[in-house]
Amino acid sequence: MDVKIYDNVSLGENPSIGEWVILGYPPRGKALPLSIGDNCVIRSHTVIYAGNTIGDGFQTGHHVMIRENNTIGDFVSVGTGSVIEHHVKIGDKVRIHSQAFVPEFSVLEKGVWIGPNVVVTNAKYPNAPDTKNNLEGVYLEEGCKIGANATLLPGIRVGRFALIGAGSVVTKDVPDWAVVRGVPAKVVGRVDEIESYKKAL
Amino acid sequence: MDVKIYDNVSLGENPSIGEWVILGYPPRGKALPLSIGDNCVIRSHTVIYAGNTIGDGFQTGHHVMIRENNTIGDFVSVGTGSVIEHHVKIGDKVRIHSQAFVPEFSVLEKGVWIGPNVVVTNAKYPNAPDTKNNLEGVYLEEGCKIGANATLLPGIRVGRFALIGAGSVVTKDVPDWAVVRGVPAKVVGRVDEIESYKKAL
Amino acid sequence: MDVKIYDNVSLGENPSIGEWVILGYPPRGKALPLSIGDNCVIRSHTVIYAGNTIGDGFQTGHHVMIRENNTIGDFVSVGTGSVIEHHVKIGDKVRIHSQAFVPEFSVLEKGVWIGPNVVVTNAKYPNAPDTKNNLEGVYLEEGCKIGANATLLPGIRVGRFALIGAGSVVTKDVPDWAVVRGVPAKVVGRVDEIESYKKAL
Repeated sequence: MDVKIYDNVSLGENPSIGEWVILGYPPRGKALPLSIGDNCVIRSHTVIYAGNTIGDGFQTGHHVMIRENNTIGDFVSVGTGSVIEHHVKIGDKVRIHSQAFVPEFSVLEKGVWIGPNVVVTNAKYPNAPDTKNNLEGVYLEEGCKIGANATLLPGIRVGRFALIGAGSVVTKDVPDWAVVRGVPAKVVGRVDEIESYKKAL
Repeated sequence: MDVKIYDNVSLGENPSIGEWVILGYPPRGKALPLSIGDNCVIRSHTVIYAGNTIGDGFQTGHHVMIRENNTIGDFVSVGTGSVIEHHVKIGDKVRIHSQAFVPEFSVLEKGVWIGPNVVVTNAKYPNAPDTKNNLEGVYLEEGCKIGANATLLPGIRVGRFALIGAGSVVTKDVPDWAVVRGVPAKVVGRVDEIESYKKAL
Repeated sequence: MDVKIYDNVSLGENPSIGEWVILGYPPRGKALPLSIGDNCVIRSHTVIYAGNTIGDGFQTGHHVMIRENNTIGDFVSVGTGSVIEHHVKIGDKVRIHSQAFVPEFSVLEKGVWIGPNVVVTNAKYPNAPDTKNNLEGVYLEEGCKIGANATLLPGIRVGRFALIGAGSVVTKDVPDWAVVRGVPAKVVGRVDEIESYKKAL
């Protein structure tokens, strides 16, 4: 068993850590604390930086990378190959599927679902001299679902329980309960018209 | 050389296994067999779960993840960073390029080509109480080609030797021999009108 | 500390190499040289093949894979999970973000920015008998910016300082200074009309 756990890492009860995992990697050499709650399952080849506070029941797939200064609730899962940047807020029971990208300043409220290969952005004008001062995180409200390979433009808000179709490019705010899809994404219905979701609302 | 090979793994003749590879990882702790045929090349940092039956000449790139209960034919390759979930059927000579995502219940017949970052889906209404009971795998018929970064919606069938343009979102069945592209993808031609494919048909 | 550095690897001054990194992996068993300049930072689980010439100040994220026969300038960064194939030319100060895909014969001039999950292609008709003889690399001119999850079709040229919107599918050449977006991408403006870029032009 070969893992690299830095100082300042606190794990709750009953942790399961896979092979070739790094926990508490110091960002730019800074020794920050990393706290993960009870019953975590961190699968092989995953890297979690120092400076994160993570709740109970946390699970990762393999080859996940999570940078520093994130706050992650209870019973969150992050799928294989996904990348979470820094200063991200992730509520309880959020599920991020495989190969997704979540950049700095994103907020994912309770129960949000992020499909495979979803790409969230935060820079309207990337690689400009003032880009770093103008980042706008997305705000994903409780229980919204972002379909596979969708792209979310900077600063948009996706409303409660809204559903974004796979492959959509979302360029503006999405109302609560709305179903949107396309490039650019347009409202095509409401989630409370969908049998599968009625039961859960 | 540091690899992790669990019990119940059977490798054919002349295997080549890269550094920091995991073979036979037991899904939810279940000790299932993993069988891989002759002349496999499993590149570094790849994880293959127990419960798979894989043919001869199997190749992976680096950082690949393949879950349990898949049937994979002969001379299949899976590119760097790709993720194959469980209960997937992959025929002979299928080539899956880099960073692709293939979820449970997908069927890829003989000679299918999956481009880089292709995202296949299986849940029309993700993260609903009944999602797991309503998964619909895609069915990709012999020799079809799915262009880079295309998204395939749940349950669609792509016909024999059809070609899906890069970046398309495929929302309905694609006829045999058709060339489709766009969002949503529409038929724009036939593969037997394309010089490069005529020779192979 | 567990890394695998093959013979024929030359590192400049002050290298920083993360855990479970492979440097100089011989493509198809060929022992080629790998040269990386001063002050490199190669983060964990990254694989760089032999046969590359890389300048000073090179940085990678985690889980990066770079194949052989590439020429990479000074102060280039390649983000977590990105894949660079072979015979790629990358100029000084290019930044490739996370989970991007850059195939063989691509040319990225000085200062190009590639967003997260960008997919570059090179095969108009993939998996045909003559595909390998007809690959057309993209040509990305100085300072252009390719938005997140965009798809670039084979052989296109993106002009100097042009900006490609997130989620676009770029099917033809993009003029210098143009802002394009959509599927297929169309010109919607000029970068010198954008305050953030004016300062840098």
